[in-house]
Amino acid sequence: MSAAPTRPSLTPLFEPRAIAVYGASSDPTKIGGRPLDFLKSSGFDGPLYPINPKSAQIQGLPSFPTVSAVPGPVDLAIVAVPAPGVLGALEDCVAKGVRGAVVLSSGFAEVGGDGVQWQAGITALARRSGLRVVGPNCMGLINVRRRLLGTFTPSAAGFGLVPGRISLVSQSGAFGGYCLSLIRQRGLGLNLWVTTGNQSDVDFADCVDHFARDDGTQVIVGYLEAATDRQRLFDALALARENGKRVVVMKVGRSEAGAQAAASHTASLAGSDAVYDGVFRQFGVLRARSIDELFDVAYAASQPVPVPQGRRTGLLTVSGGVGALMADVADDCALDVAPMPEDAQRKLKAILPFCGPRNPVDMTAQLVNDLSLFERNFELMLEAGRYDVIVAFLSSVGQVVELSSKLLEQLKKVLQRFPDRAVIVSALASPEVRKLFETAGVVLFDEPTRAVRAAAALVYFAEQSRRAALADVPPALPAGALPPPTRAVNEVQAKAILAGAGIAAVAERVAADEAAALRAARELGYPVVLKIASADIAHKSEIGGVIVGLADEAQVREAYATLMERARTRAPRARLEGVVVAQMAGKGVETILGVARDPVFGAVVMFGVGGIFVEAFKDVAFRVAPFGVEQARAMIAEVKGRVLLAGVRGQPAADEEALAQAITALSVYAAAHAEAIESIDINPLVVLPKGRGVLALDALIVPRAG
Amino acid sequence: MSAAPTRPSLTPLFEPRAIAVYGASSDPTKIGGRPLDFLKSSGFDGPLYPINPKSAQIQGLPSFPTVSAVPGPVDLAIVAVPAPGVLGALEDCVAKGVRGAVVLSSGFAEVGGDGVQWQAGITALARRSGLRVVGPNCMGLINVRRRLLGTFTPSAAGFGLVPGRISLVSQSGAFGGYCLSLIRQRGLGLNLWVTTGNQSDVDFADCVDHFARDDGTQVIVGYLEAATDRQRLFDALALARENGKRVVVMKVGRSEAGAQAAASHTASLAGSDAVYDGVFRQFGVLRARSIDELFDVAYAASQPVPVPQGRRTGLLTVSGGVGALMADVADDCALDVAPMPEDAQRKLKAILPFCGPRNPVDMTAQLVNDLSLFERNFELMLEAGRYDVIVAFLSSVGQVVELSSKLLEQLKKVLQRFPDRAVIVSALASPEVRKLFETAGVVLFDEPTRAVRAAAALVYFAEQSRRAALADVPPALPAGALPPPTRAVNEVQAKAILAGAGIAAVAERVAADEAAALRAARELGYPVVLKIASADIAHKSEIGGVIVGLADEAQVREAYATLMERARTRAPRARLEGVVVAQMAGKGVETILGVARDPVFGAVVMFGVGGIFVEAFKDVAFRVAPFGVEQARAMIAEVKGRVLLAGVRGQPAADEEALAQAITALSVYAAAHAEAIESIDINPLVVLPKGRGVLALDALIVPRAG
Repeated sequence: MSAAPTRPSLTPLFEPRAIAVYGASSDPTKIGGRPLDFLKSSGFDGPLYPINPKSAQIQGLPSFPTVSAVPGPVDLAIVAVPAPGVLGALEDCVAKGVRGAVVLSSGFAEVGGDGVQWQAGITALARRSGLRVVGPNCMGLINVRRRLLGTFTPSAAGFGLVPGRISLVSQSGAFGGYCLSLIRQRGLGLNLWVTTGNQSDVDFADCVDHFARDDGTQVIVGYLEAATDRQRLFDALALARENGKRVVVMKVGRSEAGAQAAASHTASLAGSDAVYDGVFRQFGVLRARSIDELFDVAYAASQPVPVPQGRRTGLLTVSGGVGALMADVADDCALDVAPMPEDAQRKLKAILPFCGPRNPVDMTAQLVNDLSLFERNFELMLEAGRYDVIVAFLSSVGQVVELSSKLLEQLKKVLQRFPDRAVIVSALASPEVRKLFETAGVVLFDEPTRAVRAAAALVYFAEQSRRAALADVPPALPAGALPPPTRAVNEVQAKAILAGAGIAAVAERVAADEAAALRAARELGYPVVLKIASADIAHKSEIGGVIVGLADEAQVREAYATLMERARTRAPRARLEGVVVAQMAGKGVETILGVARDPVFGAVVMFGVGGIFVEAFKDVAFRVAPFGVEQARAMIAEVKGRVLLAGVRGQPAADEEALAQAITALSVYAAAHAEAIESIDINPLVVLPKGRGVLALDALIVPRAG
Repeated sequence: MSAAPTRPSLTPLFEPRAIAVYGASSDPTKIGGRPLDFLKSSGFDGPLYPINPKSAQIQGLPSFPTVSAVPGPVDLAIVAVPAPGVLGALEDCVAKGVRGAVVLSSGFAEVGGDGVQWQAGITALARRSGLRVVGPNCMGLINVRRRLLGTFTPSAAGFGLVPGRISLVSQSGAFGGYCLSLIRQRGLGLNLWVTTGNQSDVDFADCVDHFARDDGTQVIVGYLEAATDRQRLFDALALARENGKRVVVMKVGRSEAGAQAAASHTASLAGSDAVYDGVFRQFGVLRARSIDELFDVAYAASQPVPVPQGRRTGLLTVSGGVGALMADVADDCALDVAPMPEDAQRKLKAILPFCGPRNPVDMTAQLVNDLSLFERNFELMLEAGRYDVIVAFLSSVGQVVELSSKLLEQLKKVLQRFPDRAVIVSALASPEVRKLFETAGVVLFDEPTRAVRAAAALVYFAEQSRRAALADVPPALPAGALPPPTRAVNEVQAKAILAGAGIAAVAERVAADEAAALRAARELGYPVVLKIASADIAHKSEIGGVIVGLADEAQVREAYATLMERARTRAPRARLEGVVVAQMAGKGVETILGVARDPVFGAVVMFGVGGIFVEAFKDVAFRVAPFGVEQARAMIAEVKGRVLLAGVRGQPAADEEALAQAITALSVYAAAHAEAIESIDINPLVVLPKGRGVLALDALIVPRAG
């Protein structure tokens, strides 16, 4: 995928030397008064210039009629004048050499009418001048370290923010404000915060890109309503992953009601929700399903916890019940709750005869009587159990400072010996104890299932970054691959094209009459399949146009007659080319593989297992084309139907590797001809037993209307 | 289901006039000292009698050598003497007329050896005397209203409990202690609390039964490791539902690792986890998947919120993004996010032109400028939208007391006019505001998705209690139904038995030789199916023992020869009875229906859709036999595969009503002959198009080894 053209940096927005406030008001409760009030009281470290032609002084600061009248340099303008005056203010800014502007005013594209033109004017000015504009109709931005509150959200009142390694971008101002309150309530460390509003210039992707380059950011939290520019979003997400940032995103609109709500909230064209799932996985983004999860993940990922080297998960507990609960949730998250080795279990039993030694390791309430159990069990789990990550449940121990401090000292000692292992603790902790743990860099959750889910998130990010490091580039298009058709083609032609692209198809012939069909059957070898051949009939099986298992000439004759009759009566307008005679494929697992055009993301590849169940259960995986074989493997691993590929009821395991190659090959072909293809359906693609490859049994290529 | 024999009431345990503490210690940190210390400092309202022959005074109270020496009546004894002395202490209690005892001591069945005998002695004494014993090896019990802390869990130190309408029973002491800390931290109102430990006498079911009869309890929270006595558990759960209590349970051991952890934690025999799911649904219990969920549900269900009359759910928000998120989660919970009527949407637009009027209804941040939006929108949603339940997201408004009070006044005013509607609010609230809302009986959650899930829980309880009110009794066993076989029978006989029980089967004949097979085919009419007939071959299709679609005599002859050959080579030891000739069933949806013996719950009925996918996806529903048709309908609604019954890809809708009748009929038959049946498999049971019924195509009845 080619890189998008570079836009000027957002640094002047987040790191201004000085700030001008256009439309500054003396009333600190007004939209033009509040940012100035916030900036003053938070203690922003640079000069502040109110811009208001009507007063000489605003909130105790000398005011200027326009920004050009300001004596020193100004990097950032906060604009709160009514919509009709915004463009003029921004033009002044450009003239003064201001490089960033935050337009808080509303009344633009979101209300229609003149607002649309005004917003277009802002966009044009930004592109022309290089001025970076956040908004309009947004809640502004924050840089915690600089104590820069460029916002009017009431959630910022009184500052109350702790510097940290999380940066947040929200397309929605209301959502951004709520998150800010939540961040304060939870005491999470924040670095940068921005809401993008109507995105006249700076959009979600710009902010991710900026955070990806920002040394102070370790976790990027995003609230995304709809992506607008595929390439810039991909570039930003790829850069974030490359630079070791962890990205966790809330994208609403999974359900129909949710999607309608989201669409009425923005005017953007939203890609299909399942495609977003695929894009997020493709770029290592974790998609949160609740606000709790969004910030649980952000919190855990922002702490100095080692990157888990694998999925091997140890559970240590003082309650057998909570241990079992954590095991259930770890299993939901596909973590590997591997048991302790037998001899280590014996050692644990020697330390405490009534303990549960397997995994979860249950120290029982005995821990309170013998604190050294913690260190000894912990060490054994890390040494003998070789767990990549450990979640330890300490119940309400965390409410007693003395106990907690002792446990923490043990924990720190053990971790010094195993510096590559990740540990998350769950305990009901007093604020004092919480501070103690967090100062020591230990991640702490009240609720044990949330601790397990956070551990799974760390494992996810680790796997994604290992996958990224594999340099999983798409293979080259096979030499001699045919271009896609420019008009409807029959399935035999479609399969020939796909075979050229690297997706093997079943051996078959088109036969114009009965004699030709008999000849083809003889050549291919019995048993054979007969199918109506017509480019006008997309779904042959729905009109009974496929007859399988024909064992001899008599059966082929009869089937030929039946198909001709069905075509005449059930699809009278279709132009017939005769029948397709095909070899019966060996027994395998039926999958479906396809290409579709997503309105936002372009050519996307879809994969699922098992005919009708794909439709019924919507158990499919998407990726944006093209991609390498690792992504194809991830797609296979992602669908629930994968259990059928592993072989059930004594069936042999299917050739997953050949399947991954076929999915990859299709992605390469789809990307190479993205403009010419409306859709491709390979249904079924039969996956034969291991070592025997895949076979496309039917295929449909719909060219894009020129 | 017949009622279990009645046991003496637990009232003396929870409502004692006076308490004796056996093994009372002067050291308040010891297991025998702590309960006395707790009871004294919490201010229990009755006399306390330390029992300790070694001191005349314990913790400032006169001590007695044995309980018989106590002058006044004693209802409850808390026993903390070492295990070998417990039985003697309990015998003293019986002699004194004590009616309840809590044995905190450990060293019984959980450690084996003599402990097993000692525990058996306790059980025998309890049964013989009527003394109710909690424990041994437990954390004791609490009655908050009476300030009765009959426990040594550190979580009870300092009391810190608020009286309320939640009662909790936990099989695990550690889990119970953790929950107690959590209840204190969240400020939830608690009534009774008990941990059952080794359950020598009082078990989980006893406590549920007691809570079900207790006027002060509205919500029963349970932590269940394994049920032991099916009938008493069912009776208790049924009574709880009948008395309008809401039961929410944590049952761990869903995953393999979790089940192993749970099993090592108790010695009980655990039923299959999927069967527990079925039992909980059958008795209206909500199963929580996290501790957060357990107490979110308990909290919401314990508040004076009206019972939702249906699933119609209105979402009101100040953030479009959060609105869409709530809609997504409501959809996950199968709530009905129905849109506002068109004319009401116009009215909303007239109130606020930029609002989202559909559902979610988005007031936007404009609410802060015009608080009356809340009342007006709310009223319209209740009046015109006719929502049964509304979840309102107010963002961080809840951090400002003045704003919140005004909104609360509006809310109360509107609810007076619509007293049958349930409302849940989500807002980041200061402790002060939280108190304000809760005093007014308004349920408040910080996090909007948790608010939606709590609303769904209220809807679940409401539906379950409506279902219970239907008096959905199992039908009678059909007159003339045959008893189950006492030895292996072939599929034709199995289907004949099931047909007598009310489950229709395909027309078929057993044919001993080729001539008989041809005769049968002629009588039944072509096309037919041929299957190997042998009671020794359980899974015919696995040895190629089924050939379908035979159109004429020649094909029947060939198939007959093929089957005989396969039987000879692939199942050489099976006794052959010839072949089964069956009519080809009409096209329908393949389902699987069966009966199994659960070690705890006895005869259970299992239902799933779709052959191999049942195994691959484990998409099945269980219920304990027998049950009425409403439960069968609920089973169908529960499996994901139900979408296939509704008709996909242009298939007609299947006869769900006939399916429900067949499931019910099987449950009645299974219960009537529970002792004689090991298992029944009807696979496939084909569900024909609506009005055409169901057909068992294959069936296997395994009699129970006598």
